[in-house]
Amino acid sequence: MSRFFSDKYKTLVPYTPGEQPRDMKYIKLNTNESPFSPSPKAIAAANEAAKSLQLYPDPTASELHKKLAALYGARETQVITGNGSDEVLNFAFMAFCDKAHPARFADITYGFYSVFAEINGVPYTEIPLNDDFTINTADYIGKNETIFIANPNAPTGIALSRDEIEAIVKSNSDSVVVIDEAYVDFGAESAVPLIKKYDNLLVTQTFSKSRSMAGARLGVAVGSADLIQDLNTIKYSTNPYNINRMTMAAAIGVLEDEEYTAANCAAIVNNRAYTAERMAKMGFEMTESLTNFIFAKHEKIGGAELYTELRRRGILVRHFSKPKLDAYNRITIGSAEQMKTLCDTLEEILKER
Amino acid sequence: MSRFFSDKYKTLVPYTPGEQPRDMKYIKLNTNESPFSPSPKAIAAANEAAKSLQLYPDPTASELHKKLAALYGARETQVITGNGSDEVLNFAFMAFCDKAHPARFADITYGFYSVFAEINGVPYTEIPLNDDFTINTADYIGKNETIFIANPNAPTGIALSRDEIEAIVKSNSDSVVVIDEAYVDFGAESAVPLIKKYDNLLVTQTFSKSRSMAGARLGVAVGSADLIQDLNTIKYSTNPYNINRMTMAAAIGVLEDEEYTAANCAAIVNNRAYTAERMAKMGFEMTESLTNFIFAKHEKIGGAELYTELRRRGILVRHFSKPKLDAYNRITIGSAEQMKTLCDTLEEILKER
Repeated sequence: MSRFFSDKYKTLVPYTPGEQPRDMKYIKLNTNESPFSPSPKAIAAANEAAKSLQLYPDPTASELHKKLAALYGARETQVITGNGSDEVLNFAFMAFCDKAHPARFADITYGFYSVFAEINGVPYTEIPLNDDFTINTADYIGKNETIFIANPNAPTGIALSRDEIEAIVKSNSDSVVVIDEAYVDFGAESAVPLIKKYDNLLVTQTFSKSRSMAGARLGVAVGSADLIQDLNTIKYSTNPYNINRMTMAAAIGVLEDEEYTAANCAAIVNNRAYTAERMAKMGFEMTESLTNFIFAKHEKIGGAELYTELRRRGILVRHFSKPKLDAYNRITIGSAEQMKTLCDTLEEILKER
Repeated sequence: MSRFFSDKYKTLVPYTPGEQPRDMKYIKLNTNESPFSPSPKAIAAANEAAKSLQLYPDPTASELHKKLAALYGARETQVITGNGSDEVLNFAFMAFCDKAHPARFADITYGFYSVFAEINGVPYTEIPLNDDFTINTADYIGKNETIFIANPNAPTGIALSRDEIEAIVKSNSDSVVVIDEAYVDFGAESAVPLIKKYDNLLVTQTFSKSRSMAGARLGVAVGSADLIQDLNTIKYSTNPYNINRMTMAAAIGVLEDEEYTAANCAAIVNNRAYTAERMAKMGFEMTESLTNFIFAKHEKIGGAELYTELRRRGILVRHFSKPKLDAYNRITIGSAEQMKTLCDTLEEILKER
C-alpha cells in the first residue's frame, strides 16, 4: 500500500479470481469456463472487427443491444452491456445501494457481492442459507432492501423457480431486486419474462459460460428502461466506450448462432448427468445443480485434500476455504472426455482410501 | 431516472463522447482516432486469441505488463492496464482522491476529470488556464492536492516540458501527481523517466491514438510499485478480468512492431505541419499543438458555424460549446489525403465569407 491510498479503501479485501496456473497444462475445471470454442460466427466477426481497431467502438452498442433486446423480448432501451457481468453488477451496486438502501444477499453466493458492497461503502446483510444450501425465500420477502440473488446460486448450483423469484420481486416493490443469471442457460428458469411486469427487477447475464466467451468479457443487464437509464448514467460517468469492437462483433456473431449455443448447453447438461451419476456411485454427496458445475463432497476425503490430489494428477477444480464450504469442491462440467478422465481419476483417488 | 437511483448520483452529469453518426460516411476528424489500421502483428495476434475466447484472460496480464515494463524501463509491478485509459484514470481518482486529498486540474482539459471527481464524491478545483491556453505551472507548485495534468493538454494540444512536470511532481511530495499522456507520442516529452525518482508520480498512456487501437480499449498507468498496488486493489475489487484476450494479444502484437507505431507518428507530425501551414495561410489562429489534433479559430467564422459548414460537407470535427472554447474547433490530424480535403474545404468555406 502506498502512503497516498485513500482511507476509504485501506481495509478493502479484493476478490480472488480462480487460479490460472501456467506451470503445466491442466484439465481446467476450476473457473466454469466452457469446454467448447466460441461459435465460428463469433470468431469470424471478431476477426473482421480487428481490421478497424483504430476507430472507437459505438458507445451505445446499438446493434448488439438491438439483438439482445430481440432475444429477451424487450426494447433496446431496456438493455445495457458491460465489460463482463462484474461491471454491470458493480454499476447496480453503485446505482441502487446506499446507506438508505442496504444490500441483502446470501452468505454463500458469488463472492464478489460483498466486495462490491465494501468498495461502494454500502451496508449489507449476508443471509445464511439453509443447511442443505437452499435459499429460504422468506428471508427475502418484503424487506425493501436491494436484493442480489444468483440464480442458480454459486457455488451450490441450486436454482429457485421463476415463481419463487416473482414472489420476492413483488414483495419488494420499493427496492431493486437483482437476479444474477450467470448460469441460467443450463436448465434453470430465467426471470427475464418478469421484467414486463415489475419495474424493480434487474436481470444480469453473461456471455462467459453458455456462449463460450469468458475471454471476450461481456455481461448484460436487462430491466425497465428507467433502471437501465440509471446504469447508463454510471457507465457514461466512468467508461462510455466499455465494450471494445472485437467483443461487440463476436457477441453479435454468437447471437446469430443460437443453435450452436443450444447444442453446447445440451452437451453440458448431458455431461453433468453422466458425471453426477458416476460420482453418486462413488459415494459423493452433491447438491442438485442446474449449472455447468457440480458441488460435491465425500466422507472419505476432505475438500482441500481432494483438491490437492486432483491437482497433482493434472485436474484443477475450485476449493473454497470458508468453513461451511470447506468439505466441498466446485467442479466445472467440461467435455465428455474431460468428465470421463475426472471420474476415472476420482475413482483412483478413492481406491487408495 | 428511476425512483430507485441513489441520491449520491442524482445530480451527476455524465461525460459526452464525440458523436459517432451513422447517417452518412464522414471524414472523421472529431475523436482523435488514428487514420492508420492497427499493426498487422496486432491484427494477427487478436485473430489467434479469438480462437480461445472460451477461456478467461490472464487477470494479471503478465505477458503484456512485462512488455510494457520493458518499454518504460520499469518493472512489471510498476504497470497496470485498464479497459481504456478512462478506467485507469477513474481508478486513480478512486485511490488517491478523497475529502482529505482534493483533486486539482485545469478548467480547460480532458472533460472527464470533473466527471470522475463528481462520481467519486471528490472535491476539486478547476484552475483557469492563461489566456493563451497555456498552463501556469505556479498554480500546481506545492499544493499537496492530487493533481491531474493532461500533457499535452486537450483540446489545446499544448505541452509542458519534462522539467516543468518535474518541478510540479517534486513540490507536491505528499500527494500524487497524475500525468495523462494520451497524446505524448506526437512530439512531447514523456514524464515516464521520472518515475524512478518520484514515488508520487503516476503516468497514464493509451493505445487509442498512436497505436491505432481505440477500438480495442487499452490504457496503461506506470508509477511506483506501491501506487500500482493500490490501483490493483481497486481493479481486483471491481473487475479483475478487465482486459479481454483479444485486446491483450493485439497490444502485445503492436508492441512487437514499434517501427510501425513510429512511422505512423512521424506521418501524423508531417500531416500536422502541412495542415497548420495551410490553415495559417487562410488566417486561422492556432495553438502550438504537439498532438494529433489542431485547435483553431478564425475571425471570419464562429466555431459552431464552421463545425456545421464542415459537417454539411462531410467532414466531422469537434466543437465544444464552453464559453472559452466556443470560437474554436478541435480537428484531428488524419491521413495526408484527408488533410488535403480538409484544407481545400476550409478554403472553400472561407471564400464565401
